[in-house]
Amino acid sequence: MANKDARTPASIQDEKSQEAGKSIGWHKAYVEGSRPDLRVPVRQVHLTNGQSVTLYDTSGPYTDPLVDTDVRRGLPPLRENWIIARGDTEEYAGRPVRPEDDGIKHTSPRGGLRNLDAVFPGRPRQPRRGRNGEAVTQLAYARRGEITPEMEFVALRENVSPEVVREEIAAGRAVLPANVNHPEIEPMIIGKRFLVKVNANIGNSAVTSSIEEEVEKMTWATRWGADTVMDLSTGRNIHTTREWVLRNSPVPIGTVPLYQALEKVDGKAEELTWEIYKDTVIEQAEQGVDYMTVHAGVRLPYVPLTANRKTGIVSRGGSIMAAWCLAHHKESFLYENFEELCEILAAYDVTYSLGDGLRPGSIADANDEAQFAELRTLGELNRIAKRFHVQTMIEGPGHVPMHKIKENIDLQQEICDEAPFYTLGPLTTDVAPAYDHITSGIGAAMIAWWGTAMLCYVTPKEHLGLPNRDDVKTGVITYKIAAHAADLAKGHPGAQEWDDALSDARFEFRWEDQFNLALDPDTAREFHDETLPAEPAKTAHFCSMCGPKFCSMKISQDIRREHGGSRAEIEEGMAQKSKEFAAAGNRVYLPIAD
Amino acid sequence: MANKDARTPASIQDEKSQEAGKSIGWHKAYVEGSRPDLRVPVRQVHLTNGQSVTLYDTSGPYTDPLVDTDVRRGLPPLRENWIIARGDTEEYAGRPVRPEDDGIKHTSPRGGLRNLDAVFPGRPRQPRRGRNGEAVTQLAYARRGEITPEMEFVALRENVSPEVVREEIAAGRAVLPANVNHPEIEPMIIGKRFLVKVNANIGNSAVTSSIEEEVEKMTWATRWGADTVMDLSTGRNIHTTREWVLRNSPVPIGTVPLYQALEKVDGKAEELTWEIYKDTVIEQAEQGVDYMTVHAGVRLPYVPLTANRKTGIVSRGGSIMAAWCLAHHKESFLYENFEELCEILAAYDVTYSLGDGLRPGSIADANDEAQFAELRTLGELNRIAKRFHVQTMIEGPGHVPMHKIKENIDLQQEICDEAPFYTLGPLTTDVAPAYDHITSGIGAAMIAWWGTAMLCYVTPKEHLGLPNRDDVKTGVITYKIAAHAADLAKGHPGAQEWDDALSDARFEFRWEDQFNLALDPDTAREFHDETLPAEPAKTAHFCSMCGPKFCSMKISQDIRREHGGSRAEIEEGMAQKSKEFAAAGNRVYLPIAD
Repeated sequence: MANKDARTPASIQDEKSQEAGKSIGWHKAYVEGSRPDLRVPVRQVHLTNGQSVTLYDTSGPYTDPLVDTDVRRGLPPLRENWIIARGDTEEYAGRPVRPEDDGIKHTSPRGGLRNLDAVFPGRPRQPRRGRNGEAVTQLAYARRGEITPEMEFVALRENVSPEVVREEIAAGRAVLPANVNHPEIEPMIIGKRFLVKVNANIGNSAVTSSIEEEVEKMTWATRWGADTVMDLSTGRNIHTTREWVLRNSPVPIGTVPLYQALEKVDGKAEELTWEIYKDTVIEQAEQGVDYMTVHAGVRLPYVPLTANRKTGIVSRGGSIMAAWCLAHHKESFLYENFEELCEILAAYDVTYSLGDGLRPGSIADANDEAQFAELRTLGELNRIAKRFHVQTMIEGPGHVPMHKIKENIDLQQEICDEAPFYTLGPLTTDVAPAYDHITSGIGAAMIAWWGTAMLCYVTPKEHLGLPNRDDVKTGVITYKIAAHAADLAKGHPGAQEWDDALSDARFEFRWEDQFNLALDPDTAREFHDETLPAEPAKTAHFCSMCGPKFCSMKISQDIRREHGGSRAEIEEGMAQKSKEFAAAGNRVYLPIAD
Repeated sequence: MANKDARTPASIQDEKSQEAGKSIGWHKAYVEGSRPDLRVPVRQVHLTNGQSVTLYDTSGPYTDPLVDTDVRRGLPPLRENWIIARGDTEEYAGRPVRPEDDGIKHTSPRGGLRNLDAVFPGRPRQPRRGRNGEAVTQLAYARRGEITPEMEFVALRENVSPEVVREEIAAGRAVLPANVNHPEIEPMIIGKRFLVKVNANIGNSAVTSSIEEEVEKMTWATRWGADTVMDLSTGRNIHTTREWVLRNSPVPIGTVPLYQALEKVDGKAEELTWEIYKDTVIEQAEQGVDYMTVHAGVRLPYVPLTANRKTGIVSRGGSIMAAWCLAHHKESFLYENFEELCEILAAYDVTYSLGDGLRPGSIADANDEAQFAELRTLGELNRIAKRFHVQTMIEGPGHVPMHKIKENIDLQQEICDEAPFYTLGPLTTDVAPAYDHITSGIGAAMIAWWGTAMLCYVTPKEHLGLPNRDDVKTGVITYKIAAHAADLAKGHPGAQEWDDALSDARFEFRWEDQFNLALDPDTAREFHDETLPAEPAKTAHFCSMCGPKFCSMKISQDIRREHGGSRAEIEEGMAQKSKEFAAAGNRVYLPIAD
C-alpha cells in the first residue's frame, strides 16, 4: 500500500473499508459530488458472483471503519462550511441553559443531574441563526432558484437531478429538514417523488430510560434504516439527552417542544404560556432540532367534536392543548401566535411537522369531524408557514380501517397543497396490542403507496410500554418493509433492482448473498442456521423447509439445465416443443371456458 | 350446586368452565342450534365491568375444561351421526395401508417406523364413501335446497341465516370442507360473504421434525386462531403423521397428495403415474383429508412461459408437474384425468383447492403470462368440478407488489365464477427474509379486503427453514390481524364490535380487559409488565410509554370529568361554550383557506 498517498482519499477509504467490511458482506462507500466535501454514503453489498448492489444508507459514520467515532466528542460537522459559506447566518451568545431545561425544578429539590458526566463534553459551540431574523431555509433557497449543497447531496442520494430536488422543495411538495445548528447530519429529503422515509421515535419517560440508552437507540435505529429520529423525552434530563442525541446523530432530529414546555410548568397544562413555549422552541432550535411537531391545529371549537368519541384525544400534544383551551376557554396560543413561530423557525431552518392532535385513537373514531376539521386548519397553517419560507410537513393518523385510508391521503394532499404527509401507521385494527407494528405496517404500506412521504414507525410495545432495543429494531425493519413495498408499488426508479438482486440470489442458492441483501441479514442468517447450521448448507441447493428432494427452485433449475443452456436457449427449445405439441393437435382436454 | 341436574347440560357446562376459565379472563361457551348435538363453540371474554364479548373460536375441545381430551384417543366424532343419518354413505374395507405410505420403501432398508408407538392407537374405524360413488358433498345438498347440520353449524358460527350459507355454497361462492371420514371437525365455511379465514401449514420434512411435533403444531395453531391446517409433510411417516393430525384436529385438514405420491416413487418426478397419484388420493380421502391441493393447471404448454422468469417455478407441486410434463413431453396426467379425480373427491366430499403451480416467486415475475394462463385453466377446471358437485376453491399467489394485487383477485373472481380465492400472502417485497410474515401480511390484508376468502399464512421462517412453535404462532397471529383488518374494511357485520370493546377498555384503563380481548393476551400482558410489572399498574391510569403526567387519554378523561358528567352532557356543555365563543366574534386567526 505504498502508493496510497497518490490516490484520492475516497478511493483509499473505500479500499480500506472494503477490507474491513468483507466479513459482513458489505462496505461503506461514498458517491462524490461536485466538491470534495460532498460525499454521499452508500452501502455496497458484495455478491459472491462478483457483482455488487448499492443501497441507500442511513447508518452514518458509525459503519465506516475509517472514521473514528466517539459519542463523547460527537460527529464531525459535515455541513458547517456549507452553512458558513452561504453567509446569511451569524453566531450569537444564545439563550443560557437553565436547570429547569432538564426538568430539575420539579423532580428533585436538591436539583442537579444524577450524573454530572451527563453534560455533553464535546466541542464548545455557539448557536447560529439567520442575520436579522432572515429566512435561511432550504425552501427560501429553492424558491430563489439556488441549488444548495444539501440539495445536491440528496439528489445524489436519491439518484435524481438536483433540479428535481429544488423544484419539489420550492413547490412545498418536499422538505429537507436541516437546522443550521445541526451541521452533523447527512442531508435527506421527504416528499412523495422520493423514496418513502421512516421515522423512529426514541425518548425517555418519567418512568424509565437513561441518556445513554437514548443515544444508543438513535444509532441503533439509524443502523437499521431510520431516516429521521424523533426524541420524545418527557422525563428528566430532556435538554441534556437531546444535546447528546443531536451531536451524535447523522439523521435529522425531530421533537415535540410542547412536552418539554409542559415539564417546565410541572405538568400543569393550564399554566402553559406562549412565552414558555416560545422560549422552549428557541432553546431547541439553538441546539439544532431539525423539525418540530406543533399542534397548532387543535382549536378551541374543535374540542367538543371529540366528546362523543370512543377514545377521545389520544395525541399527547393534542390533549395538552385541548386541556389548555378549555381551562382558559381561549383559542390555542399556538394558533394565535403561529406567525411569530414561523419567524423563529425560518431563522434556524427548523421544519414544521404540523401535528394531528385530534387524530383518531380507535377504528371507531377514524375520519370523523374532529379529525378533518383539524386537517383543514393544518392546510391553512401550511399556507401561512409557506409565506414565511418555513418548510412544512403535515402529520396524519392514527387508527384507520383499510377502506378509510385513501380518503386521508387524498384530502390531505388537496387541503395542504401536496405538502408531504407524515403518518403514524395507520393501525388497521385495534385488537392486536403487542403486534401494532404489524397492524400499522399494513396501513403504512398502503398510505405510502398512495402518496405519504414519511412513515412514523410503531413498535410492538405501542399501547403497552416503552420500546427497548429489540422493539426499536423490529419497528424500523417493519416500516422499512412498508416503505420499500410502497416504493415498488409507486414504481420508484431503481426500487425493484434490490428485490431482483435478492431473488436472483435466492434462485441461484447464493445463501450468503440472500442474507447480505436482506433488510436484516443477522436474523435471516440466524433463522436459516437454526435448522441447517452446517457451513455446507450455506451453499446447499435447498433449505430445511422442503429438504433436498422437494425444492421447487432446484427442480426448476434442473429443468433449465436439462432442456437447454442459457435461459434464452431453454425458452426457444421449450417454445419449439410447445409449438410441435400444439401443431400435432394435442389438445388433450376440451376447455369449457376460454 | 345441588340443583345442577335440573338444568340443561350446556348451561351447567358453561358454569363449570366459567369457573375454570376465570383466571384467564374467558371461558368456552356454546351456542345451541336446532338439535342437542349441534353446539357451536365460542370464546366468551369476561370484562371487569361486568359485560362480556363473544368471539369466534377455533381452538376445539382442548380449551374446554369439561372435555377430557387425549391425543392417543382422538377427538369425539362430532359429525358422525349427521353423516350416518343422511344415509347416502357406506363403510367399506378400504385400501390396505402399505409400508411405502410412510415412505419406508426408500428411507431405510430395514424399514419400520422409528417408534412403533407412532401408529395411531385410537378407536378402529373403517372408511366411508358415497354409495355407488354418489356425490355426498355439501355442494350437492345445497343445490338440492337442503340445509345440512353442517350448514346450520356455520350459520350460527358466522351469525347469518342458514339459507345464506346454503345459497353461497350452492352458487359455488363458498365451500364447507368436510370429508365424511373426518367427523371430528367443527364445521367452518370459506367464502367472501363470511369472515376471512386463515390456514396454517404444518408438516415434517426430510430434514427435521417428528409426529408429536406436528400434532402439537396443529393444536397450537388452532389455539391461536387457525381455521384450517394443511399437513405438508414430505419426509418419513407421512401416512401416520396425517392420521394423528386428522384424529385430533377440530379444523379441516388440507394436503397436497402429490408430495406423498412423489415419496412413493423415491422422489423421481418422471416416475409418477396417474395410478400412483390416484391411489394416494384415495388413501388420503379414506383417512379424512378435507381439502386437497391439486396442481392440474400446470399444463405442458405453459412450462416454456416460465423460462424467462427470475425465479422459475416456485411451487413444489408446480415444479414436480412441470418436470413430469417435460420428461414425458406429455400433457399433465392431472389435467388429463381431472374428471375421474372429480368422481373420487365427490364420493368423500373432499374439496378441491386448485393449486397455482405457476405462481410468481418474486416481484419480477408477478402477474405474468405463465401465472394468468394457469389461472384461466383453473377457471375451466372449476367448472368441471362443479359438474361433479365437488366443492372448489382456487389458490393464488405468491409474490406480488401492491399495485398488482387487485388485478389478481378481480381476474380470479371473473374467470373462476366467484369461487373462493385462497391466497398465500401475497408478499409485497422480496427483500425481507425473516420477516415474510410481515411482507405478506400487508398483501394478505389488502387482497382479503378485496374479496379473498382464505389466507394461507406465512411464517418468519419462509424461505429459510421449517417453522417452529413460535413461528407458527407468529404466523397465525399476523394472519388473524390481516383477516380481521379485512373483515373491518369489508364492513362485516359485528367485526367492529371487537375493536370497540378493546378500545373502550383502553380508554377506561381496564388493562386486564385489554389483555383478555387481545389476539394474543399473553404477549400483551408480558410487554406491559416488562416496564410496569407491579399489580397496581394493571389498574393505573397510564402506562410506561408516557408516564402518569403525559397520558393523553387520562387528560382526555379529565377534560370530560371537569366539564360535565356523561359524554352527552360534556358535548352539550362544550358545544354551548363553543357557540358563545363563536358568537362573541372570537375568530382569532384569519383563515386563508376554507
